[in-house]
Amino acid sequence: MPVPPRTPPGVLELLPPQQLAFQHMLDTIRRGFERFGFVPVETPAFELTKVLLTKSGGETEKQVYFVQSTGALKQADGELPELALRFDLTVPLARYVAEHEAKLNFPFRRYQIQRVYRGERAQKGRYREFYQCDIDVVGKDTLPLAYDAEIPAVIYSVFHQLAFGPFTIYLNNRKLLRGLLIAFGVADDRHEAVLHEIDRLGKQPRGELEARLTGEGFGMDPGQVTQLFDLMTGGAGDSRAAFAALGRIEHPNPTLAEGIDELRRVYDGTIALGVPERALQVNLAIVRGLDYYTGTIYETLLDDHPRLGSICSGGRYDNLAGHYTKSKLPGVGISIGATRLFSQLLEMNLIDAARAAVAHVLVLSVDPALAADCARMAAELRDAGLNVEVYGGDDKLGKQLKYADRSKIPLAVIYGSRERDAGVVKVKDLREAAVTKEHDVPRADLVLRIKQLVG
Amino acid sequence: MPVPPRTPPGVLELLPPQQLAFQHMLDTIRRGFERFGFVPVETPAFELTKVLLTKSGGETEKQVYFVQSTGALKQADGELPELALRFDLTVPLARYVAEHEAKLNFPFRRYQIQRVYRGERAQKGRYREFYQCDIDVVGKDTLPLAYDAEIPAVIYSVFHQLAFGPFTIYLNNRKLLRGLLIAFGVADDRHEAVLHEIDRLGKQPRGELEARLTGEGFGMDPGQVTQLFDLMTGGAGDSRAAFAALGRIEHPNPTLAEGIDELRRVYDGTIALGVPERALQVNLAIVRGLDYYTGTIYETLLDDHPRLGSICSGGRYDNLAGHYTKSKLPGVGISIGATRLFSQLLEMNLIDAARAAVAHVLVLSVDPALAADCARMAAELRDAGLNVEVYGGDDKLGKQLKYADRSKIPLAVIYGSRERDAGVVKVKDLREAAVTKEHDVPRADLVLRIKQLVG
Repeated sequence: MPVPPRTPPGVLELLPPQQLAFQHMLDTIRRGFERFGFVPVETPAFELTKVLLTKSGGETEKQVYFVQSTGALKQADGELPELALRFDLTVPLARYVAEHEAKLNFPFRRYQIQRVYRGERAQKGRYREFYQCDIDVVGKDTLPLAYDAEIPAVIYSVFHQLAFGPFTIYLNNRKLLRGLLIAFGVADDRHEAVLHEIDRLGKQPRGELEARLTGEGFGMDPGQVTQLFDLMTGGAGDSRAAFAALGRIEHPNPTLAEGIDELRRVYDGTIALGVPERALQVNLAIVRGLDYYTGTIYETLLDDHPRLGSICSGGRYDNLAGHYTKSKLPGVGISIGATRLFSQLLEMNLIDAARAAVAHVLVLSVDPALAADCARMAAELRDAGLNVEVYGGDDKLGKQLKYADRSKIPLAVIYGSRERDAGVVKVKDLREAAVTKEHDVPRADLVLRIKQLVG
Repeated sequence: MPVPPRTPPGVLELLPPQQLAFQHMLDTIRRGFERFGFVPVETPAFELTKVLLTKSGGETEKQVYFVQSTGALKQADGELPELALRFDLTVPLARYVAEHEAKLNFPFRRYQIQRVYRGERAQKGRYREFYQCDIDVVGKDTLPLAYDAEIPAVIYSVFHQLAFGPFTIYLNNRKLLRGLLIAFGVADDRHEAVLHEIDRLGKQPRGELEARLTGEGFGMDPGQVTQLFDLMTGGAGDSRAAFAALGRIEHPNPTLAEGIDELRRVYDGTIALGVPERALQVNLAIVRGLDYYTGTIYETLLDDHPRLGSICSGGRYDNLAGHYTKSKLPGVGISIGATRLFSQLLEMNLIDAARAAVAHVLVLSVDPALAADCARMAAELRDAGLNVEVYGGDDKLGKQLKYADRSKIPLAVIYGSRERDAGVVKVKDLREAAVTKEHDVPRADLVLRIKQLVG
């Protein structure tokens, strides 16, 4: 009795046409990162558990996959296995930079496109294995704010190339947020909790949030909450209005001033790098996690598909690798959750899997005596940069053409004794849109004509 | 006290210059596979344990890494965790083809370049995580022998592109080997054991092997063993001589005849596909595993580095996915162990990590007032297909140039008020071999000149 062949739950496994489209997306992201001079890093899928989990317990540990061979399956009670799969690319980056610090050149600009693993309960939209595409610029001791402005320029370039439709990069600053709360009289120890509520703006009815913040738990003044929310949600789509509103805040404080100054410099710097104003917006309601980011923060939304949420997020952090080294390593970076994004676009039929074949040309097999000539033809086409498949065996022509069609290979080439005698090659254009379905091409012009047809 | 940042044992983690070289190698392999029209497949790193381990016990299971989250760490005695990391790409291919059979187009030609995992004892040259680069052509019910001849053509094309020096693809056939043993009077039930000894030819002294085969365990006739070994090792470097010797075998049998016929057709077919004779050799001493391959088998050796062993091996199998489906799926394929090969070449200083930077150009930061002009310059260069990094912040010129040099970025561009007034850009060529170290290039010619300099 055969074992039922099943993909494990919680992963995205694709058929070849979709895999090709996904690979095209990853290649585009990679090329975009390289255009800005980021260098590649790959780290192992597993890390030493004690390196991966520097703090024990908590939500993270619950989602970590441990790795062990049979011999090690039974370990002492409460002892964790030695190895565990990475759950993001940030912890491995921290370990990498701390471990190889002496050999790296700072500011260290790396990109990393690899899969990460989370022991999620299997449910729709939650993946146990997914690609992340990260870039980070990590400085030693300091890192100029210019790099905070470069990051949105990279995002713009990459998503422009990906061509998933219009998108907006939203900018905010954590110092500015803290300064705002200070200005509105929120006590330091309530900052996290209040930011947590603000993070829900746009996801939950504003009335509910206002009720909570003015209720027993927070006890904020209703007028102040209204003013705060107005400020944060106001001037949507208008960065200048947002800056103007920030300038009108009563009782400014140094943290607020520093945050506003950073945000303005990052905004201006990004525009100077050529990002169009329509694609960049200050959004004071963005919070992005609670304790990791310390300055600039980014989110990116597809204008026509806001429900997807942020498709590329990140920000500035004060110190990357405090768990592993005493060196101070400030940085700024972003991450694209490629698997989730791709699967959502696929579901909405927004992925073009039209180029379903790798091969541009299928050389059919019609006369065994001419196999060597066909092979030479294929080699010539390959040398010209085309991907060429040669049909093996002696199936009927109809079956071979059906294979080409089902494989979505656009062109088929036939070279039999008739063609040889006439000094031509028959080229069949299998694409639906083809006006001329069949061409007799002089043998000597084959490469040129095929290149023209492929376009 | 910080946690010591350590890479887990048994993995190959690279610094950026080496990572770039490795990525170049993987890209070259991938492009080579695509040139022949193979389509990409990626499967998850883990599979359901019951799918991965269709037979329980044995050597394989000992090397398998199991994957489990904290909650599942304690399982009933003797019960295996639900998930396990793949140890090769063949079992996932079998599962993939069986699972998606109805949606695939046969012959199914896929390539897969991913990491696999083995719970090896950590020791030099043994990896717990390593890349495999596989291609397979899988037929439904039958698969023409033409595909067996295509595979060495792909190997040739890929290793020609990789440019690791001269190499030879060795061909043999399992049917031929079985036929030989029949012709030499070896009983069916001893075939595996005798092939196991033959597999050691070239690795152990021939005398020792002869002694074993003529000793108690095997009891073969000394004259026959000599004749067999002469046949297998003779005609080295001369495929025609090997075929001639095969033709002289006394008492031929149908299995032998079929094997010889297949080997000859694969050899001739490969030559017809343009693989030069010097790069293809029949080698009757190749055995390649004991129960998986059923026809053609391949090994590939670097002529100048035979000690590396086979760097690309594979063969023909009768039925890929018998564990998962009743469909008969014959196939032929090869695998390149990219991590092991790369690390060995690296150790022998045969990897050129000269292009150590992704960026072709570093735009220096000399005058904040001209930052927008510099940004425009960078954007122009990127649009022309160049990778460009812009230095952030206002460090002294010397420090910026030192960064470029340490990062091995070949060109640096300076645009200050002097250059602006003169309508030029200063281009510094930082490469050792540069004859002219500094060029003043008219602003309008910048892209063209940089492209010329990059070459």
